[in-house]
Amino acid sequence: MSKDPHAFSGSARPNSTGERELIRRIGPLIESAANVPSGDDMAAADGAGLLWTTDVLMDGVDFDSARHSWRAIGRKALAVNLSDCAAMGVRPVAALAALVLCEAQPVEAGVELMSGAAELAVRFACPIRGGDTNTWAGKTVIGFTVAGRADPGTRPILRGGAQPGESIFVSGKVGGSLLGRHMTFEPRVELGLELSRRKLATAMIDISDGLSLDLSRLLEASGCGALLDEAALESAIHPDALRRAQETGRAALDHALSDGEDFELIVCARAEHRAALEELGLIALGMTESAAGMRLRRPAGHVEPLIPQGWEHALGRKTP
Amino acid sequence: MSKDPHAFSGSARPNSTGERELIRRIGPLIESAANVPSGDDMAAADGAGLLWTTDVLMDGVDFDSARHSWRAIGRKALAVNLSDCAAMGVRPVAALAALVLCEAQPVEAGVELMSGAAELAVRFACPIRGGDTNTWAGKTVIGFTVAGRADPGTRPILRGGAQPGESIFVSGKVGGSLLGRHMTFEPRVELGLELSRRKLATAMIDISDGLSLDLSRLLEASGCGALLDEAALESAIHPDALRRAQETGRAALDHALSDGEDFELIVCARAEHRAALEELGLIALGMTESAAGMRLRRPAGHVEPLIPQGWEHALGRKTP
Repeated sequence: MSKDPHAFSGSARPNSTGERELIRRIGPLIESAANVPSGDDMAAADGAGLLWTTDVLMDGVDFDSARHSWRAIGRKALAVNLSDCAAMGVRPVAALAALVLCEAQPVEAGVELMSGAAELAVRFACPIRGGDTNTWAGKTVIGFTVAGRADPGTRPILRGGAQPGESIFVSGKVGGSLLGRHMTFEPRVELGLELSRRKLATAMIDISDGLSLDLSRLLEASGCGALLDEAALESAIHPDALRRAQETGRAALDHALSDGEDFELIVCARAEHRAALEELGLIALGMTESAAGMRLRRPAGHVEPLIPQGWEHALGRKTP
Repeated sequence: MSKDPHAFSGSARPNSTGERELIRRIGPLIESAANVPSGDDMAAADGAGLLWTTDVLMDGVDFDSARHSWRAIGRKALAVNLSDCAAMGVRPVAALAALVLCEAQPVEAGVELMSGAAELAVRFACPIRGGDTNTWAGKTVIGFTVAGRADPGTRPILRGGAQPGESIFVSGKVGGSLLGRHMTFEPRVELGLELSRRKLATAMIDISDGLSLDLSRLLEASGCGALLDEAALESAIHPDALRRAQETGRAALDHALSDGEDFELIVCARAEHRAALEELGLIALGMTESAAGMRLRRPAGHVEPLIPQGWEHALGRKTP
């Protein structure tokens, strides 16, 4: 699951060195399917075009059962998976629940949790087909698996499809989601499907770990770099990033670039589609380029390296 | 996940009343697909015949990381899902991992865990396609989702297909798996496929929570009861059940009937197939009958009610 590095007191940022080593060593154990490379937002479930994804949420890390309602927690647990469908431009088909409930919680917690997920499932026509429920002495852990499929005549949009010279967009303002939006965000499933139907996107990823970090993953998969425009980025700063900046003393732009759990889409598109994407409300941030790495053009005109920042974890939501 | 009620010090048996209430109240939130009723060993993943299942294992409940190797733990985490494929008579297609690793564990633990799962995945031609890995301060939780599909010309074998007057079999000796077999069992995938291919089984379930409890679930789904023969049951008692009986002072038959995690198959079959099933090494235990409930014919000839016993948990491995 995506994490905000600043999320919830008590949640330790994992040892990135260790986790990077883990992902590096687990990598060879994961088998890509021919049509979907491993490391994308979803993986191939079968040889017939069904994709799937799984995300796990942990109490004290991805939500806080002392602060958030169980209904909101269950909703988020399904929503993060629907966001993976959005990022592939595929339609959610069905979900499977894996629950490990803290035994100190009343039955009502489990019911509310599943009700929150089920409400979202109905709205996205993604029925919960079953699952596995357990209780234990530890804190609550919730995993959903979601299957999805490209609409007829369309194909999943991969991370690795961008080419140099394309425009880079974000589907909404970002940063400061920790102030609340990380629990209430709307997965961009319809947008992903529309981009797929109209063949407007060459590459796509959702922002789970931070705009700059997730963009760097898309770029790496595509084998290119990016030049972002700070003036353009300013227009993508969410008001919550400004509020959060007042709390932390960091720049709002910093929060927009590195806060996780926005669950907006990063989209690459060829120049001729720029107007169409802007009509859909997407915000242009800059251009892909052939040189690797990310650079930022400051308002005064000079260009600086942009170091990707955000939440790093072992296999990512999408395993290596 | 299936649990042995006697498993691992420190693992509390969940509040059955609470969990039964939870399952009853969550039930309406789960949508069955037309072809596979909810509450079976696997659920429908799409409308095109792909099934899926998820099982979650927790440190201190389903395994003990202080006693078991991470390789064996990873193997078991995948194997319990393959056993669900066996119980449906379907062929595993692919797996997805959801890991929540205790951050106090070395990287090596995660690598060994995935290696144990990957070895089994290769052997069952069920590639691990991706997943989600996380670390946290809590104990390790491992979930796998496995997709499976019926071989051409066959259909999944449901729990609910038995009729009165059929023979009831078990695929191997049971009881006392806690002494070690619960970590090393071989999922009966090939047997399940053969029974499906030869159309020998009317209903099937795997023993995760106890022979008598899982049989009672099959009978309930099928709308019938059963008369078991104690003399026949004696031949299905595993040597581990005898050893376990010496430790607990309970009868070995008791352990055979109520210990969980044997992962053998319970199979119902029409009378004309009895010889074929016995040739496959299955052990006949008795007959289904139209009256609900289970009864046991004692060696002396009198018949007593048989109360299903085993590990009860919220939604079962297969969620209603």
